[in-house]
Amino acid sequence: MTAREDGRSTEAMRSVEQLDPATLRQADMSDDGGYLTLSSRIAYENPWTKMREDIIRRPNGQDGLYGVVERGEFVVILPLGQVDGEPTVTLINQFRYPVGRRMWELPMGMWETRPDANPDEVAAGELREETGLIADRMTHVGVLYQGAGYSTQRGHVYLATGLTQGPAELEATEQDITRHTISLVQFEEMLRDNVITCMVSIAAFALIRSRGLV
Amino acid sequence: MTAREDGRSTEAMRSVEQLDPATLRQADMSDDGGYLTLSSRIAYENPWTKMREDIIRRPNGQDGLYGVVERGEFVVILPLGQVDGEPTVTLINQFRYPVGRRMWELPMGMWETRPDANPDEVAAGELREETGLIADRMTHVGVLYQGAGYSTQRGHVYLATGLTQGPAELEATEQDITRHTISLVQFEEMLRDNVITCMVSIAAFALIRSRGLV
Repeated sequence: MTAREDGRSTEAMRSVEQLDPATLRQADMSDDGGYLTLSSRIAYENPWTKMREDIIRRPNGQDGLYGVVERGEFVVILPLGQVDGEPTVTLINQFRYPVGRRMWELPMGMWETRPDANPDEVAAGELREETGLIADRMTHVGVLYQGAGYSTQRGHVYLATGLTQGPAELEATEQDITRHTISLVQFEEMLRDNVITCMVSIAAFALIRSRGLV
Repeated sequence: MTAREDGRSTEAMRSVEQLDPATLRQADMSDDGGYLTLSSRIAYENPWTKMREDIIRRPNGQDGLYGVVERGEFVVILPLGQVDGEPTVTLINQFRYPVGRRMWELPMGMWETRPDANPDEVAAGELREETGLIADRMTHVGVLYQGAGYSTQRGHVYLATGLTQGPAELEATEQDITRHTISLVQFEEMLRDNVITCMVSIAAFALIRSRGLV
């Protein structure tokens, strides 16, 4: 087997698999994957994050340590407006202490203090807090797993439309957030140029775009 | 200020900001964001993850606890082939213990044992290990931050082209991974239908798509 001069692949590409509905649904089936949890302890905990350390037995019989970061669910919201018929997106810019950088992001938040909250209400609340925007419609577009190889965290993606501006209500820890309503064209340029580097924001946009909603 | 009946926004959308190059570059400026680190300790550690607990002083003078999950850099690779002129994507399906689900993902991996490794080599190695594919070209498309609000982790996005199939070399912990080469059309359907829920994979695709590379 050799790579062809024209750069097209050979063996790898001889067969294209067509995944059938049953195969696609694999992810939704109740399943322990053949893993056994032999022991489990919370090794560290603060109000937002728990570090769990499990001893597991893999399907091949091999035992090992698995560290799991437990975090609550979160919401991320794409606020879609328009000016003169041109679509706009409202971004926030904030300093992110763990990476020591200011980042361009869609509004987002976790509801660590209200674990039983309704995601729709949390999304509307986060949008209002961080941007002051009130949305006529919050459309739940889908769910995403942030780092399923080591974390339990799941996010809900929302599209916010029918926007009205009210005052922002930033929490004390969010005082350095600035808000920017830009054209969708510039948003896509910032994505292309890797100026937006927030994985959550990019994935949320991609999911909304895949539905033809933006 | 009221929302209009037609759902179009009013006040929020009166002004569109045009971000200038200097503003866009904010993220690249060396900056501590006005945060002070008063103390720092490693509260938990395993070979892949450190849990750091800092006491910080925010720009507004308020002190607080900040838990930071330290993880090494990772790579994610979109293997783009073609059959009969139709583009294909090679996905993997694997059980993710932290979320108790099988997931559809692009090949990815972290180089916890080689912190000084070259991302290009790690990407080629991960692709080969998980899929058996050897790429004529690995294009570095950009970087992403996985969860910058609580984690240091940064990922590198690669596009792999000119693919040749060799044998997969799965690690002992990866034995339950299956490999699937599907059409780009089906990949996009899986994204649209929220069958693909891996944020890393979705964001990587979006970045590559934004460049017109797929």
